[in-house]
Amino acid sequence: VKETLTIVKIGGNVIDNETLLSSFLDSFAQITTPKMLIHGGGKLATQLSERLGITTNMVEGRRITDDNTIQVVTMTYAGWINKKIVALLQSKSCNVIGLSGADAALIPAVKRPVADIDYGWVGDILPEKINTSFLISLMQQNITPVIAPITCNAEGNLLNVNADTIAQSVAENLAQQFNVNLIYCFELNGVLKNINDATTLIEEIKTTEAEKYKSEGIISGGMIPKIDNAVKAIKKGVSQVVIGNAKFITQIVNGEKGYGTRICN
Amino acid sequence: VKETLTIVKIGGNVIDNETLLSSFLDSFAQITTPKMLIHGGGKLATQLSERLGITTNMVEGRRITDDNTIQVVTMTYAGWINKKIVALLQSKSCNVIGLSGADAALIPAVKRPVADIDYGWVGDILPEKINTSFLISLMQQNITPVIAPITCNAEGNLLNVNADTIAQSVAENLAQQFNVNLIYCFELNGVLKNINDATTLIEEIKTTEAEKYKSEGIISGGMIPKIDNAVKAIKKGVSQVVIGNAKFITQIVNGEKGYGTRICN
Repeated sequence: VKETLTIVKIGGNVIDNETLLSSFLDSFAQITTPKMLIHGGGKLATQLSERLGITTNMVEGRRITDDNTIQVVTMTYAGWINKKIVALLQSKSCNVIGLSGADAALIPAVKRPVADIDYGWVGDILPEKINTSFLISLMQQNITPVIAPITCNAEGNLLNVNADTIAQSVAENLAQQFNVNLIYCFELNGVLKNINDATTLIEEIKTTEAEKYKSEGIISGGMIPKIDNAVKAIKKGVSQVVIGNAKFITQIVNGEKGYGTRICN
Repeated sequence: VKETLTIVKIGGNVIDNETLLSSFLDSFAQITTPKMLIHGGGKLATQLSERLGITTNMVEGRRITDDNTIQVVTMTYAGWINKKIVALLQSKSCNVIGLSGADAALIPAVKRPVADIDYGWVGDILPEKINTSFLISLMQQNITPVIAPITCNAEGNLLNVNADTIAQSVAENLAQQFNVNLIYCFELNGVLKNINDATTLIEEIKTTEAEKYKSEGIISGGMIPKIDNAVKAIKKGVSQVVIGNAKFITQIVNGEKGYGTRICN
């Protein structure tokens, strides 16, 4: 029987809210299985850019990352946010290590090729090159990785990468070794039949049901790529993916009914 | 016979000069012994503070670190500078990991007690608590640590720490396991009998000779604490300390005559 590994991804709605972040980290520290945290960016990079007079250009929700912007996002994601989370978790007796994808060649990537849009210093992960053995070595030492969405290419350029994609790629790579429980935290309680009614939570979506929910319009908009990626992760061996609210991370980890939408086979 | 470990500390004069940094990293990557790099801050934090309208207060060469300043130095030291060095070394086939003292509880510290001066979020290292076994585990995996001068206390506060002190404490802690060669890079070629004449380099100072050189005024000013700390490190088991110019790191590592001042027993 494989050991369970809990991989949690948090985004801006947690990072930007000091109270929510602190209470989330309290719960995260208490997860008893081997675990890993992947964090996104939040508003700090945009705010810092504004204060420095650097224009933020977003195309289809992705940040165009020029020379100034890669410096700002590296400072905020891999610097302040990552180290603040590390320091807080250390104070909660959870021995963590903050990493970017550049560290220990953890997440090799290439600069995204310029097609219609030049995203600048944005990376596409090379999933087959993820340094899985280093992550396993850390967990064997009871050290919990906390990963920022910054990496580099073979030419020594720092690159901005998508935190959701990191979480998925790392989860898939560790699925051979572990029974991986991948949890995406966001601002809602999960997939709702009626987005305006929190009581209409769908507790479980079988991978075979995803297309039906999409055609019915229950899975729509920004939820579509989340579910598509979850289905892909399951097909690559991840045991389950849960999409839920960071406030209820303890309940989600414990598999309590009524918290988060579980995608599984 | 113990294996040699080369620990190199670089400061602002290397970090602030892109050409010098790149050529230094070329040489560093080629050091064949297990190795470690500790870097200071440089001008970037002060420049970023200025751009953000944050006043930099220095007292006796130490930065007073208020709430805004700890954020700026964490972003620049543990974020941009650390990750830029990591990405460059990865591109030079040197597998490195960027770390702050908070990561893996590497360098526990306490907030400096307020006496005459309140330094703010400045840390005093607890040398006996350095996580030596984690550093050894990294080196066993051929992963070279690159350490930024930021750590945290047990309460989860990030702290600004002195990079020279980190280098010394880490060197002392690893002296049991390794034959430690500790190299401090700065802007001069070493201790000069006449500071205006580079040909007057003193190649070797025995720990027993340090006081004589101080009383003669040859070791003076900012060189006094450097030599005092070097003598202390030797007394705690470090094999040798070299003070020299980053430009000549290869020659220093190879022990070539005419490069750097070697402090030893």
